Amino acid sequence: MADNGTRKYYLPESEMPKVYYNIMADLPEPPPPVLHPATGQPVGPDDLAPLFPMALIMQEVSTEREIEIPEPVREVYRMYRPSPLIRARGLEKALDTPAKIYYKYEGVSPAGSHKPNTAIAQAFYNREEGVRKLATETGAGQWGSSLAMACAFFGMECEVFMVRVSYDQKPYRRAMMEVYGATVHASPSNLTNAGRAVLAENPDSLGSLGIAISEAVEVAATNDDVKYSLGSVLNHVLLHQTIIGQEALLQLEMAGDYPDIIIGATGGGSNFAGLAFPFIGRKLRGEQDTRVIAVEPAACPTLTRGPYAYDFGDTAQMTPLIKMHTLGHKFVPPGIHSGGLRYHGMAPLISHLLELGQIEARAVQQLDTFRAGVQFARAEGIIPAPESNHAIAAAIQEALRCKEEGRSETILFNLSGHGHFDMQAYIDYQAGVLQDFEYPEEEIAMALAGLPPVGSTVSS
Amino acid sequence: MADNGTRKYYLPESEMPKVYYNIMADLPEPPPPVLHPATGQPVGPDDLAPLFPMALIMQEVSTEREIEIPEPVREVYRMYRPSPLIRARGLEKALDTPAKIYYKYEGVSPAGSHKPNTAIAQAFYNREEGVRKLATETGAGQWGSSLAMACAFFGMECEVFMVRVSYDQKPYRRAMMEVYGATVHASPSNLTNAGRAVLAENPDSLGSLGIAISEAVEVAATNDDVKYSLGSVLNHVLLHQTIIGQEALLQLEMAGDYPDIIIGATGGGSNFAGLAFPFIGRKLRGEQDTRVIAVEPAACPTLTRGPYAYDFGDTAQMTPLIKMHTLGHKFVPPGIHSGGLRYHGMAPLISHLLELGQIEARAVQQLDTFRAGVQFARAEGIIPAPESNHAIAAAIQEALRCKEEGRSETILFNLSGHGHFDMQAYIDYQAGVLQDFEYPEEEIAMALAGLPPVGSTVSS
Repeated sequence: MADNGTRKYYLPESEMPKVYYNIMADLPEPPPPVLHPATGQPVGPDDLAPLFPMALIMQEVSTEREIEIPEPVREVYRMYRPSPLIRARGLEKALDTPAKIYYKYEGVSPAGSHKPNTAIAQAFYNREEGVRKLATETGAGQWGSSLAMACAFFGMECEVFMVRVSYDQKPYRRAMMEVYGATVHASPSNLTNAGRAVLAENPDSLGSLGIAISEAVEVAATNDDVKYSLGSVLNHVLLHQTIIGQEALLQLEMAGDYPDIIIGATGGGSNFAGLAFPFIGRKLRGEQDTRVIAVEPAACPTLTRGPYAYDFGDTAQMTPLIKMHTLGHKFVPPGIHSGGLRYHGMAPLISHLLELGQIEARAVQQLDTFRAGVQFARAEGIIPAPESNHAIAAAIQEALRCKEEGRSETILFNLSGHGHFDMQAYIDYQAGVLQDFEYPEEEIAMALAGLPPVGSTVSS
Repeated sequence: MADNGTRKYYLPESEMPKVYYNIMADLPEPPPPVLHPATGQPVGPDDLAPLFPMALIMQEVSTEREIEIPEPVREVYRMYRPSPLIRARGLEKALDTPAKIYYKYEGVSPAGSHKPNTAIAQAFYNREEGVRKLATETGAGQWGSSLAMACAFFGMECEVFMVRVSYDQKPYRRAMMEVYGATVHASPSNLTNAGRAVLAENPDSLGSLGIAISEAVEVAATNDDVKYSLGSVLNHVLLHQTIIGQEALLQLEMAGDYPDIIIGATGGGSNFAGLAFPFIGRKLRGEQDTRVIAVEPAACPTLTRGPYAYDFGDTAQMTPLIKMHTLGHKFVPPGIHSGGLRYHGMAPLISHLLELGQIEARAVQQLDTFRAGVQFARAEGIIPAPESNHAIAAAIQEALRCKEEGRSETILFNLSGHGHFDMQAYIDYQAGVLQDFEYPEEEIAMALAGLPPVGSTVSS
């Protein structure tokens, strides 16, 4: 195919995929079950019913390969989807590489990241089951603002528990949620038992994602018409994100190309899974091969240095036990600017794929990610989210390897969001006050000491 | 044409217009000449040569209807253009109006507004003539960040004089410019005679756009390989923005529609002109009729309350005299959040069109614009720039009129940018601390008292 200089591949709305891709259908073996911490027995749908609508619980355990995207969800997706597939011609030129670099740009969503892909679906399924309000937690605010927007579209209420320190330091993300009509509380708050307990002990608590989760879960569990909503990690969340990869498959066909390498940043894993799973499905079915690289911060090296073990999903030990790559639910990563990548564990499906040898994992240092982000901005215009800079850093590493080896490989990465609400990170980077992190083995071992014992007994 | 529920109309890159539309070709009479303040005689190309490259000076006075967009400029435009034409189905539903509402969304540019359309062209023409660096001023930073980005793309340096108060209050816009590699100074600075003079008198000066212009112009005028760049008002700037309307014409054809009403917010006039001029051209040539509404803040009512007179373009009286609707070059509007609409004058071409009866002007109050913006965000997702909220407010007014009258008119407005760097404005609005403004006649008259006398003698 002659190269006509096209930068952006846009699918018409009429060709937007109508199904999510469910990787469970193609796995050679299913991931280990989620366990009840008290009994060590697999958790059933009824255990989850107080928190999630039945449609989502069923998606969590489905093994159907294709799951239809309801038309009302597709209608809302069409506000910003299909997102563009962009050929990074400026970056290719800046690197002087023979590699072809493409990126899927999820920053075109009004909330600025891929998060609305699942927020919209979750709001829809909840409303269908008569839920009046969704409660959730948010750290830096990417997830909270996405759910707030989705609730506005479906006429639902949204209550967000925002970690106190972010509530104070990121007033603009909070303002965004309030523009969408959500109610935002600093967490710990006086509104829940969980919050009050923390405040009684420490009135000046800065909060944590763990505490905020406890508050949102409590609101959902104690109100009949309120449910809880989570922005990553779970199977159904990753499922909703596969719209990204489903589109990318079609757009690469338009470009007459197929990726040799797929790259995504991983925190909880949802943007990575969203892009990569449909391609990994092709690998699993023996149709087409691709290297897949999950990129994580060296400051939170879940996949590269954490064992594959049963652990709690939250600090407060309120969730079931999940088999995943984890640094231990008590692990607190340093305050790197990629707030979305500071989770102690990794989505069970992604952890499972790493065990199966279907994906590679790579840790990158903070300064390298910002160096990559600034180079990208000057070449491509878009100022990326700090999380996305991890994918960019690895894409640049691969493109430079191609240059060294004189190979013209095709690289595809997920640009999961823009950095418009993260400019303080760029200020800190350019002022030279950001740091790299490398943990000594002992420190990782110490973090892992708190793993629940049930893991070792049940998982083997 | 059957309505298939399409929200976004995307032109393929290959169909992006290849020419700017120059309204000078279709005017029944040319606008009055720009005058030298000392002589009262028309200014010639040589007078402008120290500040601008000859290609732009020639565009400033061209009467050719179509001016080719150079291929290197189109290549960079393709990073974000063609921008989408979006049917505001969410807003239509929220208003329950029979009107059809479309908007052209310029917030898809990496800098977040329409400003790169001219920044990229200006950087290109300057580089073609061997210019090494562009100097400019910026207030809130929309323009500065656009020019910084354009300079990065063309390998040029960029020096931005940012009004001190914004430099201190808007560190994130400044950070954006620095990510793109620009050098940003707080103005007044110690780097120019103009800046030093101000600082000598008042070391704590907060600066003003007038002072920042003086500094940037001085840098350009005193360095052979440095030119000055302006982001609005001038004919060539408006010309570059017509890519917006050129695209919209083609996209409305895709939609099988034509606007009864076109709406744009006006500060200096460039986003309004960009969308409206190609449509006004059709009116002027007798091909197709459309109402065109320029919307300005009641706090800076240039078109609705300012006379059509010769005035300086800047506070410091360094520019030639321009015939325009003006509130007087000493007019200082209150600190509304729409920094981009606080200019005391209006682009001469737009002022001329108002005189010719080709456009209408409307002033809207600040609170109405934010009410409109929040309603828009909840219905369409995008959080608009405060400037763009003026266009939205008028579009809502017209859509509600259509509802009252039971008329299904087609409304098209320009959503010139997103509000990601303006969230403080939304915080202030939701906290109830924003105000409306209405000037008594005497106050307007006082502001106008400083108009240079040459205006009345020469203009008749």
